[in-house]
Amino acid sequence: MPPSITPIRIGIVGVGKIVRDQHLPALAKDPSYRLVAAASRHEKVDGIPNYPSIKAMLEDVAEIEAVSLCMPPQFRFDAARAALEAGKHVFLEKPPGATVSEVEHLKELAAERGVSLFASWHSRYAPAVEFARTFLTSTTIRSVAINWKEDVRRWHPNQEWIWQPGGFGVFDPGINALSIATHILPKMFITAATLDFPENRHAPIAAQIAFRTLDGIPVTADFDWRQTGPQSWDILADTEAGSMLLSGGGAKLAIDGQIVHDEPEAEYPMLYQRFAEILRTGTLDVDVAPLQHVADAFMLGKRNVVEAFYD
Amino acid sequence: MPPSITPIRIGIVGVGKIVRDQHLPALAKDPSYRLVAAASRHEKVDGIPNYPSIKAMLEDVAEIEAVSLCMPPQFRFDAARAALEAGKHVFLEKPPGATVSEVEHLKELAAERGVSLFASWHSRYAPAVEFARTFLTSTTIRSVAINWKEDVRRWHPNQEWIWQPGGFGVFDPGINALSIATHILPKMFITAATLDFPENRHAPIAAQIAFRTLDGIPVTADFDWRQTGPQSWDILADTEAGSMLLSGGGAKLAIDGQIVHDEPEAEYPMLYQRFAEILRTGTLDVDVAPLQHVADAFMLGKRNVVEAFYD
Repeated sequence: MPPSITPIRIGIVGVGKIVRDQHLPALAKDPSYRLVAAASRHEKVDGIPNYPSIKAMLEDVAEIEAVSLCMPPQFRFDAARAALEAGKHVFLEKPPGATVSEVEHLKELAAERGVSLFASWHSRYAPAVEFARTFLTSTTIRSVAINWKEDVRRWHPNQEWIWQPGGFGVFDPGINALSIATHILPKMFITAATLDFPENRHAPIAAQIAFRTLDGIPVTADFDWRQTGPQSWDILADTEAGSMLLSGGGAKLAIDGQIVHDEPEAEYPMLYQRFAEILRTGTLDVDVAPLQHVADAFMLGKRNVVEAFYD
Repeated sequence: MPPSITPIRIGIVGVGKIVRDQHLPALAKDPSYRLVAAASRHEKVDGIPNYPSIKAMLEDVAEIEAVSLCMPPQFRFDAARAALEAGKHVFLEKPPGATVSEVEHLKELAAERGVSLFASWHSRYAPAVEFARTFLTSTTIRSVAINWKEDVRRWHPNQEWIWQPGGFGVFDPGINALSIATHILPKMFITAATLDFPENRHAPIAAQIAFRTLDGIPVTADFDWRQTGPQSWDILADTEAGSMLLSGGGAKLAIDGQIVHDEPEAEYPMLYQRFAEILRTGTLDVDVAPLQHVADAFMLGKRNVVEAFYD
């Protein structure tokens, strides 16, 4: 965007780790935006007005055109609704809500009000994802294996909410894999799943999922939060043009063992570029497919009880 | 439909109890249809050609224009896809699939092929449902309580599949309640749920669900398969125009204790009338909302383990 265009005046809601690590640096570097306010129950952003709630922020700062909603998913709907009804464009952190139904309702509301709604999936903007998509579109896929295995103690130490009902458990990272898979693979649906619940927790610590694409290609997903040592965020495809490995959460692409793309990531800057783009074109970008697969996995999945988990 | 119009040549797939109890009698009485073939692995329908698979039926009986798919949900997708790709209109028994994703794919496929797809929800055609809808639309709702409590031993004796992963458990009747609720109430989403799993079963025997409509009206649903004695299939609404009770699974409507509608049911004849109507108008009727709420309940719900269940 040329600097002569007025930046989008944005407010940020739900100031936590992801906001400080990703949203604030991405916004600070992007001339398309000017961060004008923040709302959070306990946290503050330096140098701008801060409010205890989105309601207070929207009432006081009339110039806000767009909001970024980064609170936990179960508080997302009311904030999004308030913003959309006030005519503001809305950026939703992932996952876009605690249920698929509420996200569908937000989609309709945004369309009615003529404002933009963005259900962001940051992993889709990992540097090698589009190259993987192009490669897979150009060949015939035989089978796909998704391996998303990390150490929950390292990445989510003592985060109680992820173990609560609706806290997603291992699907919190797993939905990142699904956001890439639903972007680079043909349409698919779940045929079977097993979810492993620690006996002292309300959310799964591991899941094994079998998908089929509409044309019958088998896709498996293996999510595990008990991985110590090397971590895996890999999508492996066996194709007629060779074996494709998209690794590092979408950062690196190799064909038959040869690295063809390996670039530093810029996921959040790209998310904000995309949000500016849908604002300019007056469109929505709300793909519920990753969240839909998670809901389907919970509905269809077999539940195993496994060893108790302690941080 | 006047008798001069050629009846729709229909084939039926998955011949079980619901086909003999409901589909065959409804089709026999409806001059809009002529049943020309059946496909089933083990069962046969007298007086028409029978085939072991939908594939064999469609290959042999070219005159078929529409199919009714009544096999268990996990076998629904392949049959529906084969029929849609052969250019046939498709009637899906409830639930329309084992996952929401696959139903969305079928919807797109039907639209692409220009044929009609009907996700049938028989309880929506219970005699008092439209009157309840009209009543609720004309007043202000304060709160709603859905009570769907029946004796699984009486209605599903020794049906092993309903207890399997993906077998829905108490959501098999519960989805009927949700199909009515999503038709007569404002749009809503789940905010909390508890699912009771017998310690020896893979599907819930009871569920308590809290919904909120977009305008904040509380809606609760209490599903229980352990109800002996009187059975309850009730939706109770507290409104400014009085207390509304839709009972008997949608058959009977009372306002402030006074019965205003009580008529014999004709759900399946009405489903087939509706299917003929969407065929004539070349439209789809696929509302996934009831199934979506079930998937959301499984995703968001807290799991309790309860006493083992034996038939």
